[in-house]
Amino acid sequence: DPSLKVFTLNSNKGLAHEITEHIGVPMGKSSVTRFSDGEVQINIEESIRGCDVYLIQSTSAPANEHIMELLIMIDALKRASARTINVVLPYYGYARQDRKARAREPITAKLVANLITTAGATRVLTLDLHATQIQGFFDIPVDQLMGVPILADYFAEKQLDDIVIVSPDHGGVVRARKMADRLKAPIAIIDKRRPKPNVSEVMNIVGNIEGKTAIIIDDIIDTAGTITLAANALVEHGAKEVYACCTHPVLSGPAMERINNSKIKELVVTNSIVLEDEKKSEKVTELSVAALMGEAIIRVHEHASVSTLFD
Amino acid sequence: DPSLKVFTLNSNKGLAHEITEHIGVPMGKSSVTRFSDGEVQINIEESIRGCDVYLIQSTSAPANEHIMELLIMIDALKRASARTINVVLPYYGYARQDRKARAREPITAKLVANLITTAGATRVLTLDLHATQIQGFFDIPVDQLMGVPILADYFAEKQLDDIVIVSPDHGGVVRARKMADRLKAPIAIIDKRRPKPNVSEVMNIVGNIEGKTAIIIDDIIDTAGTITLAANALVEHGAKEVYACCTHPVLSGPAMERINNSKIKELVVTNSIVLEDEKKSEKVTELSVAALMGEAIIRVHEHASVSTLFD
Ligand SMILES: Nc1ncnc2c1ncn2[C@@H]1O[C@H](COP(=O)(O)O)[C@@H](O)[C@H]1O
Ligand SMILES: Nc1ncnc2c1ncn2[C@@H]1O[C@H](COP(=O)(O)O)[C@@H](O)[C@H]1O
Repeated sequence: DPSLKVFTLNSNKGLAHEITEHIGVPMGKSSVTRFSDGEVQINIEESIRGCDVYLIQSTSAPANEHIMELLIMIDALKRASARTINVVLPYYGYARQDRKARAREPITAKLVANLITTAGATRVLTLDLHATQIQGFFDIPVDQLMGVPILADYFAEKQLDDIVIVSPDHGGVVRARKMADRLKAPIAIIDKRRPKPNVSEVMNIVGNIEGKTAIIIDDIIDTAGTITLAANALVEHGAKEVYACCTHPVLSGPAMERINNSKIKELVVTNSIVLEDEKKSEKVTELSVAALMGEAIIRVHEHASVSTLFD
Repeated sequence: DPSLKVFTLNSNKGLAHEITEHIGVPMGKSSVTRFSDGEVQINIEESIRGCDVYLIQSTSAPANEHIMELLIMIDALKRASARTINVVLPYYGYARQDRKARAREPITAKLVANLITTAGATRVLTLDLHATQIQGFFDIPVDQLMGVPILADYFAEKQLDDIVIVSPDHGGVVRARKMADRLKAPIAIIDKRRPKPNVSEVMNIVGNIEGKTAIIIDDIIDTAGTITLAANALVEHGAKEVYACCTHPVLSGPAMERINNSKIKELVVTNSIVLEDEKKSEKVTELSVAALMGEAIIRVHEHASVSTLFD
């Protein structure tokens, strides 16, 4: 279908090329570089007049650079008369700034939604938003894909015995439940409590993990503090071994050191965010979301629902 | 007036503090830092409910970082119930991307105007826009200040004999004319022509410069290619000495090397953009726009016109 065009920006070109291969279309020709002073210089090098454009960019670190690249490219596509501009965000940066946790804070996740719409996007396709409420920050259609099936299928193939799916906090229980359903396993929850102010947290575990193989699941692993403390607590409380997995490997600051020094046997992530060389480790396994996202693009383009992609 | 609050972001704190000193108000308390993954973390640390907030930020390099800081702070101010949000942009980044010079380019200067408005700004105060048309990219009031009087006054004090004001290209003639009026001097224009494709440019000079002290004026000096070639051409054509000046010292890439190796005797700039230590040179003189911008803030706050600031 010549009206379907896929373009990529600079954050995740490997995944973008896997996606165009899956769909069976060439990558749209564009140049996204910098002027001498660092300002983004974009040129679209083929006609897209009247086309449905799918623009792939993770707004991962450096988030501000990747967001501005995205907005400027949307502007260029709009002015070049694209029929629709479908923004494909494997990772949605600033998703954790989704509410005023303190007085006089911004709600940057909402701001970014407004910026994307103002620039000219007509639809968003994304993966595991930190909070599903972010869909409602947009007044254009948003389709959200889920990483759980890909992560669960990987563990299913490993044929581990006697597993338990662990949520590292109360906010992640729904996700753990979905994973557990797919793997026909029970769940457990890490129940952190601070008995008094300035007393360190106590890691309680709700659910039976003794002698079991624990698989901790989270959406984002950033500095890996939560997940490595959880893993160590699980082993202390009698878990046989501990795996961890997440959709979005942010892995900033001390993350890799913590993971490498932790009781985590294997960390399974997706390629929604590029794993730089210095983050590659024997412990880390990367799964691709290219087929999932490619299939979703095909369905959106055919005006079909993406929800059956999770069966 | 307790309803007037001034805040600064990270691009140009020195200038911002000079401005609050000029106005005689304390700097608004806020923290603008980064999370571990590089995302901007902002907290406004005093009540601004019902206040008129003036937010100072140059969107100089790294432009994308400084634009996102600005947008996120505007969002925070809006949600903290500021009465008006007046964005003070000593330097407006992306101003050169103000038209489609080629097919399928973005118009980033317009995009940035839309982003600033979408975030919640109610007014813009800026200095020497690369193209005055950018005022029309906004649907909120824009006041534009001019650097020419500050630059001209500096040269007037030097009491140079027999000067000529030089525009380095045809686009800068209006600015050169203004400077010349203030200094009661004649003007000249560098008239670049490419005789044939792939033949190097010829630097023609329109106007009499022989034996004179030439002062080249531009709005932005970025890689300094234009200005240093112009200076050398002026000397070759018989100018006695050559000064250069501009409002916005972008000075990226080879700029400082070119300037230091050129025939330019002194380069006079303003502090609309911070001059990093490695750009400081015996040849470079920095003038402050703090009094001008501070005075403009006072006038805007008193609902007075800023245009008389140029007399
Ligand atoms: N990039 C970030 N890195 C770390 N924490 C963040 C980031 N963005 C937002 N937050 C904070 O994370 C908290 C929300 O995370 P959560 O409770 O997991 O939804 C809020 O207090 C935010 O201020
Ligand atoms: N940051 C930048 N650095 C260098 N050139 C730029 C930059 N932004 C835009 N331009 C280009 O500068 C030209 C406009 O400059 P001017 O002719 O001086 O208005 C256009 O061709 C732009 O593509």
